[in-house]
Amino acid sequence: MSDLLTKAAKVKSTAIQLGKKSTAQKNKALELIADELRNQSAFIVRENENDIRLAREKGFHDSLIDRLILNENRIHDMADSLNQLTNLPDPIGEVLEEWARPNGINIKKVRVPLGVVGMIYEARPNVTVDAASLCLKTGNAVLLRGSTSALYSNKALVHVIHEALNKSELPNDAVQLIEDTSRETANQMFKMNEYLDVLIPRGGKKLIQTVVEQSTVPVLETGAGNCHLFIDESANSDMAMSIAINAKTQRPSVCNAMETLLVHENWAKQHMSSLIHSFKENDVEIRGDEATQTYDDLVKPASEEDWETEFLDKILAIKIVRNVNDAIDHINQYGSKHSEGIISEHLSNVTEFMNSVDAAALYHNASTRFTDGFEFGFGAEIGISTQKLHARGPMGLPALTSTKYLIHGEGQIKQ
Amino acid sequence: MSDLLTKAAKVKSTAIQLGKKSTAQKNKALELIADELRNQSAFIVRENENDIRLAREKGFHDSLIDRLILNENRIHDMADSLNQLTNLPDPIGEVLEEWARPNGINIKKVRVPLGVVGMIYEARPNVTVDAASLCLKTGNAVLLRGSTSALYSNKALVHVIHEALNKSELPNDAVQLIEDTSRETANQMFKMNEYLDVLIPRGGKKLIQTVVEQSTVPVLETGAGNCHLFIDESANSDMAMSIAINAKTQRPSVCNAMETLLVHENWAKQHMSSLIHSFKENDVEIRGDEATQTYDDLVKPASEEDWETEFLDKILAIKIVRNVNDAIDHINQYGSKHSEGIISEHLSNVTEFMNSVDAAALYHNASTRFTDGFEFGFGAEIGISTQKLHARGPMGLPALTSTKYLIHGEGQIKQ
Repeated sequence: MSDLLTKAAKVKSTAIQLGKKSTAQKNKALELIADELRNQSAFIVRENENDIRLAREKGFHDSLIDRLILNENRIHDMADSLNQLTNLPDPIGEVLEEWARPNGINIKKVRVPLGVVGMIYEARPNVTVDAASLCLKTGNAVLLRGSTSALYSNKALVHVIHEALNKSELPNDAVQLIEDTSRETANQMFKMNEYLDVLIPRGGKKLIQTVVEQSTVPVLETGAGNCHLFIDESANSDMAMSIAINAKTQRPSVCNAMETLLVHENWAKQHMSSLIHSFKENDVEIRGDEATQTYDDLVKPASEEDWETEFLDKILAIKIVRNVNDAIDHINQYGSKHSEGIISEHLSNVTEFMNSVDAAALYHNASTRFTDGFEFGFGAEIGISTQKLHARGPMGLPALTSTKYLIHGEGQIKQ
Repeated sequence: MSDLLTKAAKVKSTAIQLGKKSTAQKNKALELIADELRNQSAFIVRENENDIRLAREKGFHDSLIDRLILNENRIHDMADSLNQLTNLPDPIGEVLEEWARPNGINIKKVRVPLGVVGMIYEARPNVTVDAASLCLKTGNAVLLRGSTSALYSNKALVHVIHEALNKSELPNDAVQLIEDTSRETANQMFKMNEYLDVLIPRGGKKLIQTVVEQSTVPVLETGAGNCHLFIDESANSDMAMSIAINAKTQRPSVCNAMETLLVHENWAKQHMSSLIHSFKENDVEIRGDEATQTYDDLVKPASEEDWETEFLDKILAIKIVRNVNDAIDHINQYGSKHSEGIISEHLSNVTEFMNSVDAAALYHNASTRFTDGFEFGFGAEIGISTQKLHARGPMGLPALTSTKYLIHGEGQIKQ
């Protein structure tokens, strides 16, 4: 049997036992992993250096190398997150609904683990600890498949996790790392419906696209954010400018940053020049439609492609629209159903926007940058779902659960 | 553009408007469809006769032809279900959660339609009305693709639905039937991620398997039921017999009927002969393991394949086990995660069974035949999900919904 099949079988064999562990047993294991990470940080850093050396030899960009680095600080941060995770409520076993039927049977809907989670991810080795800990907290076994570039680091981290699990009451085999990082193992994982209950891709657009297109295992899709902000005619000008600058510049490289700004023509007449000025002060390149270009010589023309693009950079597309309906139509045509905002003091326009834009999170008079499990108060985040089934928007621990119906009777039969 | 693409685009163009319609507007449309079905029943029967004639020419089995038939009674039953559907609560707009964050933003999680539902189904033309009405009630547009054998009937039904929608405030194009029932259109539908938010296959195992394997559109899987009943040592003998007979024989052709019976060896010693006798009186063919064969000469040997088979017929596999753990292991190995039961008076065995069997519905001292949206009190049923994401077990109207987060602020920006 291949490494992949052996490990998939191992992971699956632990799922039922793991699913029955108590909250205390699971939290104890997370604490043991945190301790072990701190104790073995020197070993982890040493192994990580192999990945860094190889990445430099291959000429990786500095930003990519930065994502790979595990130093004492980062390892201690990981350990701290594990300790924080123990404080979150355990969703498993929660009774979501309970009712009796006229024939006397009692029906309970309870939360249970998904079973076995397959995780396919890129570069960042911290995803290894993150995924393993979120899965263990929710009673899920996990099969990890990271990238070649982080293999030394991932092996070291899983080694440390195993040493901690050995001291815990959770099954050691519940966390497994695939060490063959060839494309073939990924392709095989896509079809492992017998072993995996769900696949979660974490990484770039291309990785996620490939998994969605090729996987027969159900996928939890965490996707791209081509996010918009619409400044309505009635918008408070200070608020609109502050939110627009924040949504674009506070951290341009993340999925909930604004990519296209839509501005009501009447608001534009009064404030567009000063808004463009503020963006320039923040080193933002502007690509505008024809109307926007009339406000400033330095606005470049926006192409059709710009409306579709998640820049993830200090680039912003701007379009002037006639009303809220034009804004809604533009967003529903080009948006990626992630996070969309309206700045307005006109309540019926806000309602129309909230009801008509098809996206996971809709903001009125607030920055799109709040779409995030921590900002929502979930205490942990699996990712931000842009799909409509199972979970939509920021996903906390419950996204890693399913349900079961438990029915109790006294001999009832179907008439 | 092909018929498929034209209709997919039409359906999609209505989704946002349809999603905003009020409960009253949607219920009114359902009533109009019910009236129109009753008024045009002669036309529907006439068109249906074309399908029946063709089916007879092709030499279809009587049972298949029976599924195709639409007579006055069946049409009135469909109309009655539509009237009943108007009484069910509308899930759309329901606020599932609402909270404020320390920074003052208010977050609401509300139920919204999925958008566009693609429905691929076989033979039974009543699915056309069923699917259309459940989708309309939940504000979803629907693209229907039935089978060639029911094409005359499906066209007639959708014609009637359109005439009713014309008189309603819902968009007429929200329900569309693909009239090209070639395999190619199905294959194209599997990849229509741009138009469809979800695909629901309804029909045989092979159809569902094909959709799950080939679709890149997310699938709501309604699956096969290889259901088990375990009679524990402590089971009340009358109750065990009554439930076993009911689960197998009340309607053997449905997914929640029992296919394999597992019996504790000590209970078997006392009651197996009389249980087998009862099954025989009910014309049930028994295929047993070696131990079961010792109880009656007419028990045929069960093959490995029998443990895996959903007979959907008056055939039952029986295995004698040593304890509840053997029963759990057998079910988790061969079951299809649908409905599984235990008859026992031993509470810790019941708890172990409930916690360790991985299935949508687990029964204690009741027949597995209750896994059904109506028996659960949902008032409607989309199908019974055997997947773990989104919805598990009997699916009522909420399974046809997604959620949105609506966030209200007063100018909050991310620090």
